Amino acid sequence: MQKVRIGLIGTGYIGRCHAIAYAQVATVFPLKGLPVLEMLAEVTPELAQQRAEEFGFSRSTANWQELVSDPAIDVVDICAPNFLHKEMALAAINHGKHVYSEKPLALNAADAKEMAEAARAKGVKTLVGFNYMKNPTSQLAREIIANGEIGDIVHFYGTHNEDYLADPQTPLDWHCTKAQAGLGALGDLAAHIVNMAHYLVGDITNVCGDMQTVIKQRPDPKNPSLLREVENEDQASVLVRFANGAMGTIETSRIACGRKMGLTYVVTGTKGTISYSQERMAELQLYRHDEPQSRQGFKTLLTGPLHPDYAAFCISAGHSIGFNDQKTVEIRDLINGITAGDRMWPDFEEGWKVSRVLDAIATSAEELCWINVVEN
Amino acid sequence: MQKVRIGLIGTGYIGRCHAIAYAQVATVFPLKGLPVLEMLAEVTPELAQQRAEEFGFSRSTANWQELVSDPAIDVVDICAPNFLHKEMALAAINHGKHVYSEKPLALNAADAKEMAEAARAKGVKTLVGFNYMKNPTSQLAREIIANGEIGDIVHFYGTHNEDYLADPQTPLDWHCTKAQAGLGALGDLAAHIVNMAHYLVGDITNVCGDMQTVIKQRPDPKNPSLLREVENEDQASVLVRFANGAMGTIETSRIACGRKMGLTYVVTGTKGTISYSQERMAELQLYRHDEPQSRQGFKTLLTGPLHPDYAAFCISAGHSIGFNDQKTVEIRDLINGITAGDRMWPDFEEGWKVSRVLDAIATSAEELCWINVVEN
Amino acid sequence: MQKVRIGLIGTGYIGRCHAIAYAQVATVFPLKGLPVLEMLAEVTPELAQQRAEEFGFSRSTANWQELVSDPAIDVVDICAPNFLHKEMALAAINHGKHVYSEKPLALNAADAKEMAEAARAKGVKTLVGFNYMKNPTSQLAREIIANGEIGDIVHFYGTHNEDYLADPQTPLDWHCTKAQAGLGALGDLAAHIVNMAHYLVGDITNVCGDMQTVIKQRPDPKNPSLLREVENEDQASVLVRFANGAMGTIETSRIACGRKMGLTYVVTGTKGTISYSQERMAELQLYRHDEPQSRQGFKTLLTGPLHPDYAAFCISAGHSIGFNDQKTVEIRDLINGITAGDRMWPDFEEGWKVSRVLDAIATSAEELCWINVVEN
Amino acid sequence: MQKVRIGLIGTGYIGRCHAIAYAQVATVFPLKGLPVLEMLAEVTPELAQQRAEEFGFSRSTANWQELVSDPAIDVVDICAPNFLHKEMALAAINHGKHVYSEKPLALNAADAKEMAEAARAKGVKTLVGFNYMKNPTSQLAREIIANGEIGDIVHFYGTHNEDYLADPQTPLDWHCTKAQAGLGALGDLAAHIVNMAHYLVGDITNVCGDMQTVIKQRPDPKNPSLLREVENEDQASVLVRFANGAMGTIETSRIACGRKMGLTYVVTGTKGTISYSQERMAELQLYRHDEPQSRQGFKTLLTGPLHPDYAAFCISAGHSIGFNDQKTVEIRDLINGITAGDRMWPDFEEGWKVSRVLDAIATSAEELCWINVVEN
Repeated sequence: MQKVRIGLIGTGYIGRCHAIAYAQVATVFPLKGLPVLEMLAEVTPELAQQRAEEFGFSRSTANWQELVSDPAIDVVDICAPNFLHKEMALAAINHGKHVYSEKPLALNAADAKEMAEAARAKGVKTLVGFNYMKNPTSQLAREIIANGEIGDIVHFYGTHNEDYLADPQTPLDWHCTKAQAGLGALGDLAAHIVNMAHYLVGDITNVCGDMQTVIKQRPDPKNPSLLREVENEDQASVLVRFANGAMGTIETSRIACGRKMGLTYVVTGTKGTISYSQERMAELQLYRHDEPQSRQGFKTLLTGPLHPDYAAFCISAGHSIGFNDQKTVEIRDLINGITAGDRMWPDFEEGWKVSRVLDAIATSAEELCWINVVEN
Repeated sequence: MQKVRIGLIGTGYIGRCHAIAYAQVATVFPLKGLPVLEMLAEVTPELAQQRAEEFGFSRSTANWQELVSDPAIDVVDICAPNFLHKEMALAAINHGKHVYSEKPLALNAADAKEMAEAARAKGVKTLVGFNYMKNPTSQLAREIIANGEIGDIVHFYGTHNEDYLADPQTPLDWHCTKAQAGLGALGDLAAHIVNMAHYLVGDITNVCGDMQTVIKQRPDPKNPSLLREVENEDQASVLVRFANGAMGTIETSRIACGRKMGLTYVVTGTKGTISYSQERMAELQLYRHDEPQSRQGFKTLLTGPLHPDYAAFCISAGHSIGFNDQKTVEIRDLINGITAGDRMWPDFEEGWKVSRVLDAIATSAEELCWINVVEN
Repeated sequence: MQKVRIGLIGTGYIGRCHAIAYAQVATVFPLKGLPVLEMLAEVTPELAQQRAEEFGFSRSTANWQELVSDPAIDVVDICAPNFLHKEMALAAINHGKHVYSEKPLALNAADAKEMAEAARAKGVKTLVGFNYMKNPTSQLAREIIANGEIGDIVHFYGTHNEDYLADPQTPLDWHCTKAQAGLGALGDLAAHIVNMAHYLVGDITNVCGDMQTVIKQRPDPKNPSLLREVENEDQASVLVRFANGAMGTIETSRIACGRKMGLTYVVTGTKGTISYSQERMAELQLYRHDEPQSRQGFKTLLTGPLHPDYAAFCISAGHSIGFNDQKTVEIRDLINGITAGDRMWPDFEEGWKVSRVLDAIATSAEELCWINVVEN
Repeated sequence: MQKVRIGLIGTGYIGRCHAIAYAQVATVFPLKGLPVLEMLAEVTPELAQQRAEEFGFSRSTANWQELVSDPAIDVVDICAPNFLHKEMALAAINHGKHVYSEKPLALNAADAKEMAEAARAKGVKTLVGFNYMKNPTSQLAREIIANGEIGDIVHFYGTHNEDYLADPQTPLDWHCTKAQAGLGALGDLAAHIVNMAHYLVGDITNVCGDMQTVIKQRPDPKNPSLLREVENEDQASVLVRFANGAMGTIETSRIACGRKMGLTYVVTGTKGTISYSQERMAELQLYRHDEPQSRQGFKTLLTGPLHPDYAAFCISAGHSIGFNDQKTVEIRDLINGITAGDRMWPDFEEGWKVSRVLDAIATSAEELCWINVVEN
């Protein structure tokens, strides 16, 4: 079987998730290729070596440039901080590597576009880590929509709210600076729900947004008595229109008290509605308007083996899958995409489209107007 | 005890609710005045008489002008179709009657303003039937906010969605015509959630809306093969800003499959969040961010005797109150307001403010821009 | 229309509920008779008179014997403490009055049987206030079962749990003494769920119970430093078998922390399941096993106008009814039963059957054995 | 690091779960030993070899006796059909192997006792696959109880209900025969909830059960027109008493329409209550009676990094873990137990105790009496 030699850059929060998914993917899914954990890059040789041992990689380096140019690497998997995605991806593409990058693809749409175009020009394959749409439950949502079970979509309401910066005493970190994060909640969180909206309803064409930095200053992490400026938005809301004419609203916040994994969506169609919360990632609410009126109601579907990609994890319904399992589906797509030409999506093109929507939201919020995303 | 002699105009859906509430109010609450069901008006003498018997009114008439000018009437209670509110209220005010009108106060803000000004000029008392804010559970929400339990409000998300026109085969009725309804979902439904936003967060100052008539034609009620134009919006979404600086989003729809009484709100503060759905009108979700991190979570409060106005119905918690009980609280406010000067709110001033917001939303949706509600 | 002249004894917690229901019943329902609030009895003349005014009764007395023998009374409505039910009911029956008694019918099955037999012998009509089965939602549950929508019933799980005595510092009151209450949680709470089991599934024929007085002593209400003995059970659980062969389990507790109105049931059939909690009294969960496997799930039905007795309160679905509305349905049944011969159920016969089950549970718990309820 | 060489017997439903857990465990947890997938046994050489490749085992065999006696095996992991557990475990113990067996440990308590005693005599370590108690959420439940946060436990209600045999047309399979399964729902499902009761509350000492075979005959799997006898119970309910005096009720069913993973528990204490459903395996309901009365309610805790064993999977709260992750915790316990002497529980002793309770329930249901589990 064809080998897919992985070079992983970055082993923080999301790098570890990748490692867990790599570890289990071949046991969960019958793959069309063989993932090989070839090389890992971290900021120091010691950390790189330690993590290579923990994650099962053969080699390690403190120099990511070495990794992206290594002839034994087929795929560069970028889990480094967001502001480095562009440089790393372009270098990898330049060396003819396939690239699997975490979201957001870049700090702004212009950079994302440059990356997507470079990949297309070089003919390499790409994948962006919008893992929530890989959840069997959200795949089921799409299947229900595609089947026409809820009719034509007329409205989408989506959120990605969390509360990791709700406490004003939480010190300023990289999330809060333009140089390292670009946008705030929009870039870190809304990227997921915009991608989900694209996945479930179709492309967003017009936006009109509002946003706010509610906590304007935060303690310096090293000197808490010093207050430093927060440079990007804590929360944003946006009216959207989709290419197919549907209306929608998307909201995001990093200060939404009580939301731990607040990616939610309600998709309303002419014949029914689906409703979902990522905090209950193994269930979907489905309403069908064509049922007898006295027996209408939202039905709680528990994700199970008759739904996409669930049976590989467990053949009983209602037994739940977890956060890392979504990454495992994503990596299955990566391996099968590279070795067998299976569809790899969301690719850099989609990563750019998401960035384009996010930038348009921010601009529209600054200029207090509607923006046509496509023409912009 | 001072008598409050009621003249009720209209006995349809909401008129019956008023009648039920009048029937029970004096047993539920220790009132400061004595409601007397004096006269009832309907479109024919027969119907008027029949309903007077059913509802316990002493006299009846098919001529509402007779009712508003009758010297034995203290309060004119308007449950007639929306397009008649203005004419009836102005006539009642002109005769020096207090006026208790169903929502929406009028078909547009200009009319509502005229009504509010007439009442102020004449010195009569007014009340608008935005009953959902009378629910003890929403009163509790306000109490929690007023206490500072969730800190400063930073975000409001509210909906009033129903699905009574979701089926495209439902014939066109008065809701769909500008002459009889003015706005569509905004006027019929969003009026409630805008009032609720005012009640919980404060005045809305700026709006930017979007709206759509999804089902553009409907069968004529008398000749179903004939299709007639729907003249107002099926759904609308709007970004709002409050006087206190909070952001918000409000949505409304009359074609939202599955929503039977979809008035919902999520109020996010700097220290916590409350979440509510009118379909579970006796419970409130409360999250406090200052709890120990490992024990944080949304708590389900069941409305009970320690919460406002509940104990009058039942002295045990969790025993639930119903839709008509909200009206009973409202009528308690009416009687005590007229006889003892207790606060009567939402009054015509608030009815006008709500209309002003709704008109601004519609205009902003047509002109694709933000509108300052106050200066407009 | 035939008058039904009511004599109400007792105006505490539940007496007030009756009063509210009497107040609204004729407006809510088109009745077949005319309820007349004739006389009210309380423990002192002052209190009796005050309550008569509040509740709208014409006359009052401090002597209930006077009430039960008054020729102008058609129905004696007993809301007095439980230990007085028997004496009052027998006196009323003796005077040929119809009797409407609160639950539990009596302190033990022998007394209840005597009452049922006296009523039968005298030919008077009876009704017991098991109001929860009057809720449109539970009526819907029965309709679903009767329709065969969930097949043959194979299992019933029911609870009536509350936490009003959860705090060990709550002083001893009448609930805790055999002389005034008879059984503890079984008599006060489980009476409702046993009646509900009869209503939904059929007669209980065999029981095997367990019970416990968890908090064995409580402070004397007048002298808190003095501890007094709790004489009856705080919690009980029981295995049951129904006449139709179904298995079941019923639990009750007055110290179940967190349960405010914890009447719940899950009824499992060969083709489906229904699930209900009185704390969400306007919704029912329904599961149908014959739906396509990938779309199976519990559906949340919101009670609405197509369900029994709801439309009289409100013609829109999902608008909720409240605790007192159940009593209103009950009183509708009372009036129509007496004047038009409509079915009045649960009658004293059912009140006795419930008592018989409760006594059998207690005996079985003491003797650690199964008991045949019917032969007992 | 010390190697722990695994010999896996059986690769069906649960064998695959083990394989997935072995694959990810070393990446998820910092282990104290190194699991080595040494040998795998299946019924034919071909299947054994195929699965060894899929699961990453070095060697394979169609002869499990060969595996249990192989000198290069440290732990025999038994995922074979239940009726084989005893023979295999005794053989493995006899060869001095540590044994990790799936539940139920054996078809009856006598066999389980023999196995536990053999292991003790030989000095080998044992573990039984009651994986649900390894879920961080149930570990949190135990932590809350152990902390005294809900006071002394007074009541336990637990279920393990599923609906895999709800359809009477589902052919008879091994679950339904005494020879292959022993007990029915009790053995297959209730084993888990009895273990959970032991884990959360303590040992069960007395039981009084009821049980039923509802669907008495099922089609022969090979000849559907032939009906064959179902030999064990479809559903059972049981009253229990715990060593610490608490009361409880446990129910189980394999025909409970709508339950896909219906392991649930409600633990009531003198100061609070916890409530859990495995279908929402990443959340726990917690009620504290000592909160201010007007703010009491059940709080939804989302499992997160401050709760036991969650952070290894993900450092953000509310991101959910899945079914296989529980097995991963279990295998972490296995590896660390064998190499570092960490506690390995539930061991064969507990497996036997669970079997003893299950047998006592069945006996008590047949003899219609209470049974003292310990003295039995």
